Amino acid sequence: MSDTIDLLRRQVADLHQELVRYGLVVWTAGNVSARVPGEDLLVIKPSGVSYDELTPENMILCDLHGNVVEGEHAPSSDTAAHAYVYRHRPDVGGVVHTHSTYASAWAARGEPVPCVLTAMADEFGAEIPIGPFALIGDDSIGRGIVETLDGHRSPAVLMKSHGVFTIGKDARAAVKAAVMCEDVARTVHVSRQLGEPLPIAQADIDRLNFRYQNVYGQRPAAQ
Amino acid sequence: MSDTIDLLRRQVADLHQELVRYGLVVWTAGNVSARVPGEDLLVIKPSGVSYDELTPENMILCDLHGNVVEGEHAPSSDTAAHAYVYRHRPDVGGVVHTHSTYASAWAARGEPVPCVLTAMADEFGAEIPIGPFALIGDDSIGRGIVETLDGHRSPAVLMKSHGVFTIGKDARAAVKAAVMCEDVARTVHVSRQLGEPLPIAQADIDRLNFRYQNVYGQRPAAQ
Amino acid sequence: MSDTIDLLRRQVADLHQELVRYGLVVWTAGNVSARVPGEDLLVIKPSGVSYDELTPENMILCDLHGNVVEGEHAPSSDTAAHAYVYRHRPDVGGVVHTHSTYASAWAARGEPVPCVLTAMADEFGAEIPIGPFALIGDDSIGRGIVETLDGHRSPAVLMKSHGVFTIGKDARAAVKAAVMCEDVARTVHVSRQLGEPLPIAQADIDRLNFRYQNVYGQRPAAQ
Amino acid sequence: MSDTIDLLRRQVADLHQELVRYGLVVWTAGNVSARVPGEDLLVIKPSGVSYDELTPENMILCDLHGNVVEGEHAPSSDTAAHAYVYRHRPDVGGVVHTHSTYASAWAARGEPVPCVLTAMADEFGAEIPIGPFALIGDDSIGRGIVETLDGHRSPAVLMKSHGVFTIGKDARAAVKAAVMCEDVARTVHVSRQLGEPLPIAQADIDRLNFRYQNVYGQRPAAQ
Repeated sequence: MSDTIDLLRRQVADLHQELVRYGLVVWTAGNVSARVPGEDLLVIKPSGVSYDELTPENMILCDLHGNVVEGEHAPSSDTAAHAYVYRHRPDVGGVVHTHSTYASAWAARGEPVPCVLTAMADEFGAEIPIGPFALIGDDSIGRGIVETLDGHRSPAVLMKSHGVFTIGKDARAAVKAAVMCEDVARTVHVSRQLGEPLPIAQADIDRLNFRYQNVYGQRPAAQ
Repeated sequence: MSDTIDLLRRQVADLHQELVRYGLVVWTAGNVSARVPGEDLLVIKPSGVSYDELTPENMILCDLHGNVVEGEHAPSSDTAAHAYVYRHRPDVGGVVHTHSTYASAWAARGEPVPCVLTAMADEFGAEIPIGPFALIGDDSIGRGIVETLDGHRSPAVLMKSHGVFTIGKDARAAVKAAVMCEDVARTVHVSRQLGEPLPIAQADIDRLNFRYQNVYGQRPAAQ
Repeated sequence: MSDTIDLLRRQVADLHQELVRYGLVVWTAGNVSARVPGEDLLVIKPSGVSYDELTPENMILCDLHGNVVEGEHAPSSDTAAHAYVYRHRPDVGGVVHTHSTYASAWAARGEPVPCVLTAMADEFGAEIPIGPFALIGDDSIGRGIVETLDGHRSPAVLMKSHGVFTIGKDARAAVKAAVMCEDVARTVHVSRQLGEPLPIAQADIDRLNFRYQNVYGQRPAAQ
Repeated sequence: MSDTIDLLRRQVADLHQELVRYGLVVWTAGNVSARVPGEDLLVIKPSGVSYDELTPENMILCDLHGNVVEGEHAPSSDTAAHAYVYRHRPDVGGVVHTHSTYASAWAARGEPVPCVLTAMADEFGAEIPIGPFALIGDDSIGRGIVETLDGHRSPAVLMKSHGVFTIGKDARAAVKAAVMCEDVARTVHVSRQLGEPLPIAQADIDRLNFRYQNVYGQRPAAQ
């Protein structure tokens, strides 16, 4: 148990460096969490600590209502949203939140990113949808995430006027979704600056998504 | 006293690397200063020295009229503006100036950045306002900064046709404001390229700002 | 023979770092391959392995139908397209595939990049053409690449709604074409955002291309 | 004499890293040269050699007609243009050429960058002008640079459909001009994407330029 938590502390701390590497975050905005499998616990970034200073030791262990179980710092101010997702989506093992530029630009207009790239069909299987405007401080953000992604293929939701939340079977998959979300939000934005991207037929989106989710990558440890 | 100044020399030298890291500056443009608490003194970057060569030792100690007290180089050519701010805003402990791309692009149009992102409501609590066109060489720039920010929640001002000045309780807070200013100036720019970002209700801006300024981050040493 | 393959394993592994350096790829998207000269074999990236973890040893050796000859991982999911190109273009020694942002943005609109820069005339000798929309899983992508580039000066093709494939006499030349493709796709995009780039006369494009392909660089080992 | 040349070899090799650092070049495009003071000689980058492999030793020494005096490689294919500038502008000690994205985007439209930023007034003192379309291979490019910059305050010229050439009293000043040229070309581009940047009165441009060229930086070793 304690070994699992130690591993997750290291993994969550390290995955924040992927947010930095891909330019998804500035200063201390943005956070990654992981569910502790089989426990009502999650591991998350401390609030207001810079990415250079994140270590396995200063990650925060919380229960699934966001109460600190172990840790010297306050947890990310987005912990309530992460916790809500874990409580309502038992299939989710990782959650990521960023204000990455292009995804947030779509979110600021309240406009979903249309699925006009084969890589988007692969990873998202559909448009990247818009969630409601929601204030921090209660369950509004978490509920907006869960309700928007419910029954949706996309592991990413653009919260209106705010930024992105992504989910995954583990923290690494959620980080991958955050990286890919910004990448396709940027490419589709750039494409639309000079005209309309061509649509992809729904049947082709379906075929691409099915193949990617079932065939791509190394087996058995896909991703 | 001398220990405090030594610490500030190191802090100011190091904080310039944050300007580099976040791409806010090229060559030698841009500068950070810190007030020496309880003294009529400030620590600032030397003029025309490259970011690679900044050390605690070559930072310049000036009085609050921009006269050099200690230092082998000339101080930043923006020292008069920094000094003016410290003379007229006793609550300010740090000042930053950059020509960061997106903020300067709004400044070149003389157009404030509208508050259409929750992260902007958090950090700026309002639009990022425009200050007057002012020439270097007397108190015009400093006065423009102070008059524009007087009674404004925003710690950043876009000086018309010029660039950004930010203030903070210390140099680190002013650097954070400069980083966030460019980040939101970029996101709102990108969003507006393809339509109009949705407004956020004033009451929601007020709520977000109050919460962020009073609750966010680690206590007691919040951000 | 085995020495040649070892050299190609190292070269292909290393060249992936150029894709990272020039920002052409995120996560595990994008791949480089090289033909084994004189053999019906190619060396290619493993599928779904991150760029940090690529080594000469984990590159995959395949035959020219994409069957693994040597390697512990599955080969890139784009291997069939690479293999098709090698089978039908005996002059090609290297193939690269990316979803680089600006090239993919043109591809998403199905619009070729017009030849309006002397550097484009040098390297591409013409517009960068659009290939058909094609699904992964059979020879459609490979055939689309070969048919589009047949008799075309450009070593790059923008596959509709997908991304870029480039070819070269060896893997390094194909990587160079991928880097230059994104560079000119970006510059022409940016130029067109504020008006129409000036055309270059066909005779000048011809002169520039002839000179560059025959005179530029170090001799005898050009590029 | 030989010591001076050794110093210039090192300086020119090192300054190419500034082109890389500021993202002005990809692959092997772009080059820096320096005049050997008091001699009819220049030091320049070899052709088609990657930036990682540039060393003081592989820099090329040429006469002012571009003939190699010392060096194992061919000199940059732009050597004739550099040499022409040195022959006709005895005040010039350094020349830089790049295809940097935003400057080249203005060049592709044949449109000068208007002087709408105080930093542009400082460094360029005017718009950044457009030079003629000119083919490589004779003196056309060199002549276009010299004729365009003759009597112009700007140390940068945008060669139509091509890229940027900058000049300076030494190679470092020319590199600074190339860095600042891309920076202001980008900021003015971004500003114009959402409206018209405000003009700066000519008298203010004159004042800013005079002050910057005569007062800014460290004395006596300005820059």
